[in-house]
Amino acid sequence: MADQASPEVRDRVTASFERQGLMRHLGARLGHIAPGRVHIVLPGRPEVTQQHGYFHAGATSAIADSAGGYAALTLFPDDADVLTVEYKINLLAPAEGEHIEAIGTVLRSGRTLTVCRLEVFGVQGQQRSLVAAGQQTLFRVPGREVTRGP
Amino acid sequence: MADQASPEVRDRVTASFERQGLMRHLGARLGHIAPGRVHIVLPGRPEVTQQHGYFHAGATSAIADSAGGYAALTLFPDDADVLTVEYKINLLAPAEGEHIEAIGTVLRSGRTLTVCRLEVFGVQGQQRSLVAAGQQTLFRVPGREVTRGP
Amino acid sequence: MADQASPEVRDRVTASFERQGLMRHLGARLGHIAPGRVHIVLPGRPEVTQQHGYFHAGATSAIADSAGGYAALTLFPDDADVLTVEYKINLLAPAEGEHIEAIGTVLRSGRTLTVCRLEVFGVQGQQRSLVAAGQQTLFRVPGREVTRGP
Amino acid sequence: MADQASPEVRDRVTASFERQGLMRHLGARLGHIAPGRVHIVLPGRPEVTQQHGYFHAGATSAIADSAGGYAALTLFPDDADVLTVEYKINLLAPAEGEHIEAIGTVLRSGRTLTVCRLEVFGVQGQQRSLVAAGQQTLFRVPGREVTRGP
Repeated sequence: MADQASPEVRDRVTASFERQGLMRHLGARLGHIAPGRVHIVLPGRPEVTQQHGYFHAGATSAIADSAGGYAALTLFPDDADVLTVEYKINLLAPAEGEHIEAIGTVLRSGRTLTVCRLEVFGVQGQQRSLVAAGQQTLFRVPGREVTRGP
Repeated sequence: MADQASPEVRDRVTASFERQGLMRHLGARLGHIAPGRVHIVLPGRPEVTQQHGYFHAGATSAIADSAGGYAALTLFPDDADVLTVEYKINLLAPAEGEHIEAIGTVLRSGRTLTVCRLEVFGVQGQQRSLVAAGQQTLFRVPGREVTRGP
Repeated sequence: MADQASPEVRDRVTASFERQGLMRHLGARLGHIAPGRVHIVLPGRPEVTQQHGYFHAGATSAIADSAGGYAALTLFPDDADVLTVEYKINLLAPAEGEHIEAIGTVLRSGRTLTVCRLEVFGVQGQQRSLVAAGQQTLFRVPGREVTRGP
Repeated sequence: MADQASPEVRDRVTASFERQGLMRHLGARLGHIAPGRVHIVLPGRPEVTQQHGYFHAGATSAIADSAGGYAALTLFPDDADVLTVEYKINLLAPAEGEHIEAIGTVLRSGRTLTVCRLEVFGVQGQQRSLVAAGQQTLFRVPGREVTRGP
């Protein structure tokens, strides 16, 4: 696959991401957007921690879930939308570092369901280590061409 | 099981919860604390939404994960701590309402591993509906009696 | 919900179960069939064990998966069929006993997707203990009225 | 990592596999054994099917679970044993072909817990396609050096 999504797809993903109050509230930002693969970065700060000062599993999962959702969206027709059906995530190691980076990658894109692999890395300077890994099922909400039409 | 945890256990859960920067940042608060069952409530506001104004799956999951973690903790010796190994969650319906309420319930409490059932309800006035359901595995981090000793 | 499915539904479930070569090969049999809840029983014997003589996680999961699939099917229109999208299962304790019994229960039945809770019990005489618990997502394959039509 | 496990490790995996009544009963056989990665092959035959003649999700999962378990075991000390804590699997496409092949790969190997990626491929002649993908958590049962002692 190409390593860069088309401008139209990137605009669509960006516009949706900016409407996610939670992502803004956490301080997350979109990283790379490729067809079938999206990165989201979350800088470390006290607002995203658990009781020991590590990134909270809920924050780690939130950006992983969004990364997978947008990875699915990059392969949809432009008027379709995406819903998370379910996901499973293993927290492999305490998540720490300057920031964490979630990568959602489409494993299978079907007409109704998409399955993504989720990975989250802790990044500290040149160090990069896998802190969470998961798998997600997404639902494609069909577009509204007909109901919009004249 | 009793429906109310002992004051010591409630203090321990509350103290840990208050150190979770993410829970405070989201605006979540502890609800009922029973032995093996903990409730967490998250009021609706723009900071916890996804692109359509519903509660973000990441916010729903974050309070579910914390509810399960504290449910496990209520059954641990008082110097032990808890880590999430993994969880799986199905988003059953768009999560909306005045607030959502997560309930974590211990299904099995072992020496090292605890398994919890996770449920999240959307609450609007008298209406209450299941919006997410999941299952979680937790790890008991042994206490530090020895290293504390003289 | 009623505790007994209609004769039509039970016939439909039974006919499908009997076409599952794996269930017959393992020696599994259908138990109770209620609307939204199906039981499957698997007697212990060397052919379904892992290396220590307990029921193999694969056998435990196989009957749990089928129990959930048929629980979903009981709520479908009579020409629809069911596919497992995914499931997650925790093996809570070594599964042993005269037989194990899987119970699949519908948590949410949607137009396209159904979510089931899965439980497996080990049964020895009067003793009954939970040995596995999980959650499953299923897909409803629409019936073929149109393509069958004249 | 090396692509071939040591003869000692292969003997250990093979001996354990041969004690799994279920694997023999299904007709599964061990494939490649590398450090942290094990393959298991299951030939197609009526005894492993669901109601439409495809491989049953339970058979697909059973070999995936065993492949992950043995992948974990290859990295353990020689007197340790392995238990599946939980796994999650997505059935991506109807599993068909001359045989299916499960590959378990260690993502993280800890002192107590190991996490594996699970993949199952349907193989027909030169064709090979991903039919299932999952993730698994395993528990290392410590060896019995002490109780064996002199």
